[in-house]
Amino acid sequence: MTQVIVLNGGSSSGKSGIIRCLQAVLPDPWLALGTDTLVEAMPMSMQTADGGVEFAADGAVIVGPGFRTLEAAWIEGIAAMARAGARVVVDEVFLGGADSQQRWRTALSGLRVLWVGVRCDGAVAAGREVARGDRTIGMAVSQAEVVHQGVTYDLEVDTTRAESMECARTIAARVE
Amino acid sequence: MTQVIVLNGGSSSGKSGIIRCLQAVLPDPWLALGTDTLVEAMPMSMQTADGGVEFAADGAVIVGPGFRTLEAAWIEGIAAMARAGARVVVDEVFLGGADSQQRWRTALSGLRVLWVGVRCDGAVAAGREVARGDRTIGMAVSQAEVVHQGVTYDLEVDTTRAESMECARTIAARVE
Amino acid sequence: MTQVIVLNGGSSSGKSGIIRCLQAVLPDPWLALGTDTLVEAMPMSMQTADGGVEFAADGAVIVGPGFRTLEAAWIEGIAAMARAGARVVVDEVFLGGADSQQRWRTALSGLRVLWVGVRCDGAVAAGREVARGDRTIGMAVSQAEVVHQGVTYDLEVDTTRAESMECARTIAARVE
Amino acid sequence: MTQVIVLNGGSSSGKSGIIRCLQAVLPDPWLALGTDTLVEAMPMSMQTADGGVEFAADGAVIVGPGFRTLEAAWIEGIAAMARAGARVVVDEVFLGGADSQQRWRTALSGLRVLWVGVRCDGAVAAGREVARGDRTIGMAVSQAEVVHQGVTYDLEVDTTRAESMECARTIAARVE
Repeated sequence: MTQVIVLNGGSSSGKSGIIRCLQAVLPDPWLALGTDTLVEAMPMSMQTADGGVEFAADGAVIVGPGFRTLEAAWIEGIAAMARAGARVVVDEVFLGGADSQQRWRTALSGLRVLWVGVRCDGAVAAGREVARGDRTIGMAVSQAEVVHQGVTYDLEVDTTRAESMECARTIAARVE
Repeated sequence: MTQVIVLNGGSSSGKSGIIRCLQAVLPDPWLALGTDTLVEAMPMSMQTADGGVEFAADGAVIVGPGFRTLEAAWIEGIAAMARAGARVVVDEVFLGGADSQQRWRTALSGLRVLWVGVRCDGAVAAGREVARGDRTIGMAVSQAEVVHQGVTYDLEVDTTRAESMECARTIAARVE
Repeated sequence: MTQVIVLNGGSSSGKSGIIRCLQAVLPDPWLALGTDTLVEAMPMSMQTADGGVEFAADGAVIVGPGFRTLEAAWIEGIAAMARAGARVVVDEVFLGGADSQQRWRTALSGLRVLWVGVRCDGAVAAGREVARGDRTIGMAVSQAEVVHQGVTYDLEVDTTRAESMECARTIAARVE
Repeated sequence: MTQVIVLNGGSSSGKSGIIRCLQAVLPDPWLALGTDTLVEAMPMSMQTADGGVEFAADGAVIVGPGFRTLEAAWIEGIAAMARAGARVVVDEVFLGGADSQQRWRTALSGLRVLWVGVRCDGAVAAGREVARGDRTIGMAVSQAEVVHQGVTYDLEVDTTRAESMECARTIAARVE
C-alpha cells in the first residue's frame, strides 16, 4: 500500500491543484502537507530574515541554515505521521534538486513512496503566476528546471496542456 | 477610448485569472471590481439569509431582493467611477442572462464598453473547481451555460484550452 | 437618514472588526468598502511600483500620483452608490489628515455623513499588528497619530480598551 | 528546555494571535501548528461529510472517526518533530476536554511540555467572532467552557482584558 506520495515541481507548476483533485478522487482520506505549510508555521521574521527563507524581488528563493534545521525536523514528523497510519501527499519544491530528494528519501526509508514529478513549461507557468496574483513574479521561471535536476521519479505529469484533474487521475492509477 | 471591460462567465471559468493578466499587459492602470467584491462588501448575514445571496450545497446561487437593491446601487457606482476617469474591468456572473446584461447596459450608457464572454467547457470548469478548493462544488457546472443565455458580446474567449494570459492578450488587442 | 459612515483610523486600530460588528447590529444592510478594497482592485504592479502605493519595510506607506487619480474616481463612485440608495460604511486611513478628509467631504457633499475617528494607543496597535500577522510591522505606530491630524469627527471611539462590538454599538446609536 | 507549548482554548479566544506574538518574542524559532493546520490538510469532503469534521450552522463542531484516525497520526508526527529538535507551539481546541489532553499527553511523553490554558469570557469571544468575520457564529460561545473541562495547565492566560502580546510575554517568561 502506497503510504506517501511526494509531488515535486516548481512554483506555479500546478501541484496544489493536482493534490486537491487527488484528495477528491482517491477513495481513502489523504493528508496534504508541504513546503507552504512549513513556511506558514515559521515565525514571520524567518520569512524575510537571516536563517529563514527569503523571496527575493526577482523570484529567487534563498534558504538559510535556520530554515534547514526546522525543515529536517518537519520531514521527520511527516515520516512519523505516515508510519502512524496517515496517508500523506507531500507538496514539495526541491530547490536543491537531487540533494533535496535525498533528504526526503532518508527520512521516508521503509515507507512505500510514490515519487511524482510535476512539469510545466516555464513560459506557461510564468503566465499562470501572473494569473494567480499571489506569488512573487519570477519564481515560476527560476524554478521550472532546477527543481528536477538529478531527481528520479516513478512517474511524471506535465500540466502545460493537461488539466489538474487529468494529472490527478494519472497519479491515482499508480497508487496501491 | 475603452472605458469599461465587462467579463461575463460562470464560476471557475477563469475570469479572475484573465483579469489579473489584463491588468498586467494593459499599459494603463485598470481597476478590477466584480461580483465577488460586492458580496464581500455585504453583511455576513446577507451571504446566507433571506434577501441576500445564498450558495446552496448543490452549487446553485439564490439571490433575493435585498441583494438586487444593493447591486443596483453598486452598478451605478461602478459607472460613476468610469465617468470620473477610472478605467474599470468588471468581473461578472450574469445569473439572469440577458436581463443581467441589460441592467449593466443601462447603467453604463454613454460609456465605451467592451463586452467579453468567457466560456469554459462545463466538465473542465468542474475539474478546476475541485482543484482550486475554495468554491462550493457544483457552481461551475450549473452556471456554465445559463450565464450566456441571450447575452451579446464584442468578443468571446474560451479557457477550455487557452491560458489566461493568452485570453488576456486577445482581449487587450481589442481595447482602444 | 445617515447615508454614509466614514471610519478613519491607523492600521491595526480595529476599524475592520468594528465595521463587521456594525453590519451585524445595524438593522439595514450596509455595504463595507474601503482603502483595502481599492488597493486590491489595482494592478499588482501598482502595489509596489512608481505611481501606486508602496508599503516600505519600516511600515511607511508611500502613495504616488497614479494612485491618487484612481482613488479620486473611486471616491466619486462610492458617493454615487450612496446617492443611488446603498448605505455605505467606508473604512479609511487618512494618510494626508485634513486634506484626505476634504477630498471625501467634497465628493460626499449633499449626503448625510457620520464621521467617526477610531483611535488606538500606538503601542497597543503595534502589538495587535504582530498578533494578526498579515501587516508590515511598523505601519500601526507610524499611522496612529498622523491620520487624525486636523480631522474633525461626529464621534470618536477608542479600541485600546473597548471591544469592537462595544465600539460598534456606540456608533450604531448615532446612526439615524 | 521546553520542547512543546500546547495552547488550548475555545474558538475566538485569541490563541492564534498569542502564538504569533510568542513566535516574535521568543529568541529561538518555534513552529506553530494546530487544529486549523490539520483541518486544512484534510480532503475538502472531510470538512463536511461523515467521518470528518463538520461545522454546524449553530457553531457546534462534530468530529467523526475518520477525523480521529488522521488526528492520532498527526499528533504522533508533531511529537516526532519535537523529538527531532524543532520547538513547536501547538494551537489546540480540546473539544473532548480531559480526554483530548490525555491523547496529547501520551503522544508527547518524554518531552518537556508547557500546558497553557487560554480563557476568554464567552460573551466577549462571541463579539470577537463577529468582528473577525471568518468563523461560524456560535462556535465561540459553545466552546468557551467545555474545552477546559478536566484539563490541567502549567499556567492560564485570559484574553478578556489582556492583549495578545501581554499574554505572550507571560507565557514566554515560563519557557525554559
